[in-house]
Amino acid sequence: MSINHDPSLGTGITMTKRSIGKKVPPLVLPVCLLGSVVEGKANFCTVAWFTMIDDEPPTIGLVLGKGRRTMDGILENKSFSVNIPNIGQAQLTDYCGIHSGHKVDKSDLFRTFYGKLGSAPMIEDFPVNIECRLKEVIEFKGVDLIIGEIEEVHIDDGCLDGMKANHKLIDPLLYAMPGGPYLRLGEDVAKAFSIGKTLKKK
Amino acid sequence: MSINHDPSLGTGITMTKRSIGKKVPPLVLPVCLLGSVVEGKANFCTVAWFTMIDDEPPTIGLVLGKGRRTMDGILENKSFSVNIPNIGQAQLTDYCGIHSGHKVDKSDLFRTFYGKLGSAPMIEDFPVNIECRLKEVIEFKGVDLIIGEIEEVHIDDGCLDGMKANHKLIDPLLYAMPGGPYLRLGEDVAKAFSIGKTLKKK
Repeated sequence: MSINHDPSLGTGITMTKRSIGKKVPPLVLPVCLLGSVVEGKANFCTVAWFTMIDDEPPTIGLVLGKGRRTMDGILENKSFSVNIPNIGQAQLTDYCGIHSGHKVDKSDLFRTFYGKLGSAPMIEDFPVNIECRLKEVIEFKGVDLIIGEIEEVHIDDGCLDGMKANHKLIDPLLYAMPGGPYLRLGEDVAKAFSIGKTLKKK
Repeated sequence: MSINHDPSLGTGITMTKRSIGKKVPPLVLPVCLLGSVVEGKANFCTVAWFTMIDDEPPTIGLVLGKGRRTMDGILENKSFSVNIPNIGQAQLTDYCGIHSGHKVDKSDLFRTFYGKLGSAPMIEDFPVNIECRLKEVIEFKGVDLIIGEIEEVHIDDGCLDGMKANHKLIDPLLYAMPGGPYLRLGEDVAKAFSIGKTLKKK
């Protein structure tokens, strides 16, 4: 096939592809701490496999391995939180991914606050907190997909331009799958829903 | 509540939170072009709402609005591709998000290749291509969640250190939800599954 677009838009070079197998692909992902109250105490686990599901109503989905302690609290209270760390919170984020809530009490790691649901513990020092009501759990062989309706989004005052979140001020921690490292955001590349309008097809 | 961890790990400052409502939260996401063959021609649409679902076997899930042209091909061939753009491919990525395959023929935008499934069109100039077999479609009110088993991952030779993908060489395009902009990766922050081991709880 021939290239029908301006080669300057892409690499313009024929790359040699290597097939690396049937495996987890390299992707850069946001990372969060998923929180719930388990037997009266806040617990958090680190999750990088999550996505928005819908926008009306705003709905989020998170993938959790079977038998996780945080899941007990989600089922008990039908609520959970999604907390987005900044780059200064990499150590805490990594700690909550390494250590199971079955063995370690994570309730004293963070200052927490509660929003309109009253049962989703949110991490005060993390810049973005998403308060969710459990809608359903979709079971897969090795994991559960937790579907939650977003009831409220809380953001640090210092990360807002007016009522709009500023990603540079949030400075979210990113995770390069598989295995890391954690990275931060770089420069702007282009406006979305805009730069594509200037593409002229031949 | 008091802070029980070293304040240097987090911000250490009490932030004032602002509740911005029941809405799509600010998140930085990877972005991909989802590809399928529709009536004999490759078609692609832009998706930022996707996540890994499982690793054994490697399984991916992508959220697609109802009535998308790409879905016709996915259902017809029971296969699809997930193509990760680099920052130089922002215009093409944005174009495929703005224009529907019902109205625009996108088959001539890219040089494509086919892998072991033979029916998942992959974009040669994009650095990472993930070849998937359709497993199931989970229906939500406004969207479908497409679940696919990853059959093979293809990577540009120039983005590999040995058999390991190098995220800096891939230089993936990221999308700041909602509304943009597109951004690139910045510097490394910390090693994953490592920096958390040095946290000393008080």
